[in-house]
Amino acid sequence: MVPMEAEKGDGGGAAAEKVNFAAPRSFATAFKSDLKETLFPDDPFHDFKGKTLPEKVKKSVQYFVPIFQWLPSYSRKLFMYDLLAGITIASLAIPQGISYAKLANIPPIFGLYSSFVPPLIYAVFGNSKHLAVGTVASSSLIIAGAIEKKVHEADDPQLYLNLIFTATLISGVIQLILGVFRLGILVDFLSHSTITGFMGGTATIICLQQLKGIFGLKHFTTHTDVVSVTKAIFKYKHEIRWECTLVGVTFLVFLHIAKMVKQKKPKLFWVAAIAPMVVVAIGCIFAYAAHAEKYGIAIVGPLKKGINPPSLKNLDFDPKYISAPIEAGVITALVALAEGIAIGRSFALMVNQQIDGNKEMIAFGLMNIVGSLTSCYLTTGPFSKTAVNYNAGCKTQMANVVMAICMLLTLFFLAPLFSYTPLVALSAIIMSAMLGLIEYEKAYHLFKTDKFDFLICMAAFLGVAFISMDVGLMLSVGFALVRALLYVARPASSKLGSIPDSGLYRDVEQYPGAISIPKTLVLQLGSPIYFANSGYIRERILRWVRDEQASKDSQGDDVEYVLLDLGGVTSIDITGVETLVEIRRSLEVQEIKVVIVNPRLEVMEKLIVTNFVDKIGKDRIFLSIKDAIEGCKFSLGK
Amino acid sequence: MVPMEAEKGDGGGAAAEKVNFAAPRSFATAFKSDLKETLFPDDPFHDFKGKTLPEKVKKSVQYFVPIFQWLPSYSRKLFMYDLLAGITIASLAIPQGISYAKLANIPPIFGLYSSFVPPLIYAVFGNSKHLAVGTVASSSLIIAGAIEKKVHEADDPQLYLNLIFTATLISGVIQLILGVFRLGILVDFLSHSTITGFMGGTATIICLQQLKGIFGLKHFTTHTDVVSVTKAIFKYKHEIRWECTLVGVTFLVFLHIAKMVKQKKPKLFWVAAIAPMVVVAIGCIFAYAAHAEKYGIAIVGPLKKGINPPSLKNLDFDPKYISAPIEAGVITALVALAEGIAIGRSFALMVNQQIDGNKEMIAFGLMNIVGSLTSCYLTTGPFSKTAVNYNAGCKTQMANVVMAICMLLTLFFLAPLFSYTPLVALSAIIMSAMLGLIEYEKAYHLFKTDKFDFLICMAAFLGVAFISMDVGLMLSVGFALVRALLYVARPASSKLGSIPDSGLYRDVEQYPGAISIPKTLVLQLGSPIYFANSGYIRERILRWVRDEQASKDSQGDDVEYVLLDLGGVTSIDITGVETLVEIRRSLEVQEIKVVIVNPRLEVMEKLIVTNFVDKIGKDRIFLSIKDAIEGCKFSLGK
Repeated sequence: MVPMEAEKGDGGGAAAEKVNFAAPRSFATAFKSDLKETLFPDDPFHDFKGKTLPEKVKKSVQYFVPIFQWLPSYSRKLFMYDLLAGITIASLAIPQGISYAKLANIPPIFGLYSSFVPPLIYAVFGNSKHLAVGTVASSSLIIAGAIEKKVHEADDPQLYLNLIFTATLISGVIQLILGVFRLGILVDFLSHSTITGFMGGTATIICLQQLKGIFGLKHFTTHTDVVSVTKAIFKYKHEIRWECTLVGVTFLVFLHIAKMVKQKKPKLFWVAAIAPMVVVAIGCIFAYAAHAEKYGIAIVGPLKKGINPPSLKNLDFDPKYISAPIEAGVITALVALAEGIAIGRSFALMVNQQIDGNKEMIAFGLMNIVGSLTSCYLTTGPFSKTAVNYNAGCKTQMANVVMAICMLLTLFFLAPLFSYTPLVALSAIIMSAMLGLIEYEKAYHLFKTDKFDFLICMAAFLGVAFISMDVGLMLSVGFALVRALLYVARPASSKLGSIPDSGLYRDVEQYPGAISIPKTLVLQLGSPIYFANSGYIRERILRWVRDEQASKDSQGDDVEYVLLDLGGVTSIDITGVETLVEIRRSLEVQEIKVVIVNPRLEVMEKLIVTNFVDKIGKDRIFLSIKDAIEGCKFSLGK
Repeated sequence: MVPMEAEKGDGGGAAAEKVNFAAPRSFATAFKSDLKETLFPDDPFHDFKGKTLPEKVKKSVQYFVPIFQWLPSYSRKLFMYDLLAGITIASLAIPQGISYAKLANIPPIFGLYSSFVPPLIYAVFGNSKHLAVGTVASSSLIIAGAIEKKVHEADDPQLYLNLIFTATLISGVIQLILGVFRLGILVDFLSHSTITGFMGGTATIICLQQLKGIFGLKHFTTHTDVVSVTKAIFKYKHEIRWECTLVGVTFLVFLHIAKMVKQKKPKLFWVAAIAPMVVVAIGCIFAYAAHAEKYGIAIVGPLKKGINPPSLKNLDFDPKYISAPIEAGVITALVALAEGIAIGRSFALMVNQQIDGNKEMIAFGLMNIVGSLTSCYLTTGPFSKTAVNYNAGCKTQMANVVMAICMLLTLFFLAPLFSYTPLVALSAIIMSAMLGLIEYEKAYHLFKTDKFDFLICMAAFLGVAFISMDVGLMLSVGFALVRALLYVARPASSKLGSIPDSGLYRDVEQYPGAISIPKTLVLQLGSPIYFANSGYIRERILRWVRDEQASKDSQGDDVEYVLLDLGGVTSIDITGVETLVEIRRSLEVQEIKVVIVNPRLEVMEKLIVTNFVDKIGKDRIFLSIKDAIEGCKFSLGK
């Protein structure tokens, strides 16, 4: 860097001229740009530039209804892949549909209905080629928990079911609104750590609840927390039927072996995929042949033939109960979106595709709205089904159509067969699926790498397991927000020194070889400067100066300049600018001059519009630390 | 910069070695450092280093009880200043005390009590040399509003008063706890814009309420919002007494002229300072001599002689009412702290002193706890009184002691004289004080410089004026938090170009002269990268790459490297690191290599501990953009 001085041969004055003091952008321009970054960060219409009107119309239709994008170029070869994948996920959808409907305390047939209409809607509006639509355990449980606060299933099954549909409609409307207004940003606030903990906690309580089915208990608690469930098992331990337990454990071991086969040989994924169907089939035959009821092994009971009846008339907005479906709708809308979008994105990433979260929200919203009118309850993209779909080689959303057709055939012809499904088989299927969702390793990884992330994860896990699902979720999101706010309230700042022979200025703590500059203190700030952290930043800068004074005092070398490198400061508000003014005033009393280095576009605009630039003087603002130090030396010389 | 290449004469390999890949600090070290920055940003014990034990003990006592710091060196000369200032603020404390007690709907004598004990406590524990302790209009109104939700003053005056003391105790305890646990950070979240709007809104509704006194109305509304108050005036307009209105307007004009005198000639500040006392005195004489009651001019009524009675037995924690004092206590604790600390800091700044916000909280907390036991209600550092104190030349906290002694004398000898104070005089005093708190100019300045800050300010103003004080405050803080979260959720990123002949890389939008680098895209990130913004950052980076590809396609010049300058990234969490991995994977599919430039200490630690550094390779991390570009050229050459 040293030769540069000779090249330029000038002091601070000329260097300062290089700084761009152009007039700030108009409010409209800046607002438009901010709005775009906030709501359209992925620039969804980037393909539209320079296209003719008919092309634009075509693009728009394809953009909003993706089926027009992939169907025209759909081929028979692709269909063969999707057919196989569709049949595979259908074989998973049947037992899962029945099981999760039991979790939500609704008749099992509604689980099958929910795998018929929503996949068709998703096939039209969905973006992800791999997502397999279906009901999920966590949302089934949340929805049941919220509705049970108002109405017990046992007291009024029809009202209970109606409120479940209402909750599904509300959920769909919320998802649609979030998508249309591009508020995908809300889902961003559910961090990976929260989701890991939440899933783990939910899986734990669902597993515990399945002990009722495995042990063949007649009585149980309606609470979901670990303590109540454990107590209930001890209380009703005299009801445990060994026959039932034996069958349940056998199924569990079988499902576990199937999973291990898949892990050892990923090519044999279909073993794990069809295992639940096998369990159901064996269970049915066994129950039918051996009259299992006699041994205390309960079965699902009658399943009506026929496809989804309409359910518009079932929607119930009675103000007496409406708070429950609203609560269920809001929570499940967000949880289902977070799960569905995250899963869709993960699989898209593997084949280097982009998923637009906001468009997915619209697809999910439409799917649940239509679902709520056709006797379906909340659906999203469950992880297990999607993974099976991906592994089975699905190529497009057509796999969901194939699954829907399989469900249609099942509903028309096969439904009565499943009425013999033993409940213990369903419990085993649910438990087996849930055990895979408790990610010990991920939690341990979090513990090792980031204690705060671990805390966020454990808050969700323990909150869900020991208190309730909404408390756990809120606790965890609360911690995550506190962390987010701490990040903004306490941004890191560091003292920079010159790294010899490189012309670079770096953190002296990180690079102990960096040497400090005589009579000058170079501070690097980061993050936005604004009301929530401006008090801290002022204190911290004054403390840097005090410490520097103390260490320099011994060398008889006073600090004369404080250089604030704002290169990492992404924005500033009024309080932030006022703080800079205060810092300058405080330091000037001590005869220390403040110099600003490299403010970014947005910051510079704010400094100009608030007259800070005029107050401090344009010759006190430099483009680089080097220029600023040259500038200071030049005036020191004077 | 160009000559550097020759000096170093090497490619990327050697440059990468300069990056510090030292093992991360232990969790304990990092945690200690984070905790210090979060709770002790001002390093309060910095004076203690290298002192002997007796010195340390002395310092500690002085630190926690500041009177030991200033009293030993107190001189007669300083006392003369403080005596004058103390008498001046006492003359303001009497009318203000009576007026604000009326605002809180409690007997006026408690306003006088509140200017006796708390100033003495503050003199012992307080930090600010200029703060004058007393009751404030906003908190008086908030406390009354919250308590009235449970008990109307007219229904049970004693219970009402007891709950006011309870609210004061709760407020004091909260302030003390916040101070002891150094949670001054909470006050940081009340931005200047919120306070401006809140003060303006409060002043507006207080002014409107005083119309009752000015017009001499007998009936009025208990609501505080603009609509209700305006309606009430029209409803009871037949009760308006012209005699009362005439007196009120005369007083208002007099007070306004006194203020103008002060503005024109700052040396005559005492004219404005004693004006309220003059109004009270004239009012008393007039009421006594002319039997004002006959003309519908109400007076304060009997005031007991004697100092504060103890009020420990008055504290009421009856669960039936406790929610009201808790609400009042929490809100007033924060509002009073925000006002008191901000005012203390502003005046300290003028004489280049530092105020430790956390210590101030402890002083305020103790003052209110002791106050609640001695028949005082909530006190803080009001702006008007403090400004008068400062202008009157106060030098230390002794001015508060002088004021307390004046109040003592008043309570013993003069209290009965004030019983003739006409209510209209008090209304005029309150209105005059409030009109100064509506800062039109500041709001206009906000509008001109930052629309979002203006929105935050107006939310507080309109919310308070048209709905209620707590709704207004929450709305405004809500907007401010949304903004804070938007800052963190949508951090600015920019594309850098090389500024010719300078070796600098700057935002191409800000510096249109900067030219882009062949086959390379340099992106600068800022702010922390974590769960709330990692989705956005991924989308944004992929969009930058897409746009760059589109523009370079026409030149037949593919992007081969993406340089991410992390110099402005102050921290990163697990989700953030996972996002970097995802970005790398997505770009690698397009045969674009990701290079990391200058990660800061905390970020580098997280990248090492999560094995990101090993995954990407140490030769892909550089200390400067220049090094990175050299490194890329080197491998391109291969």
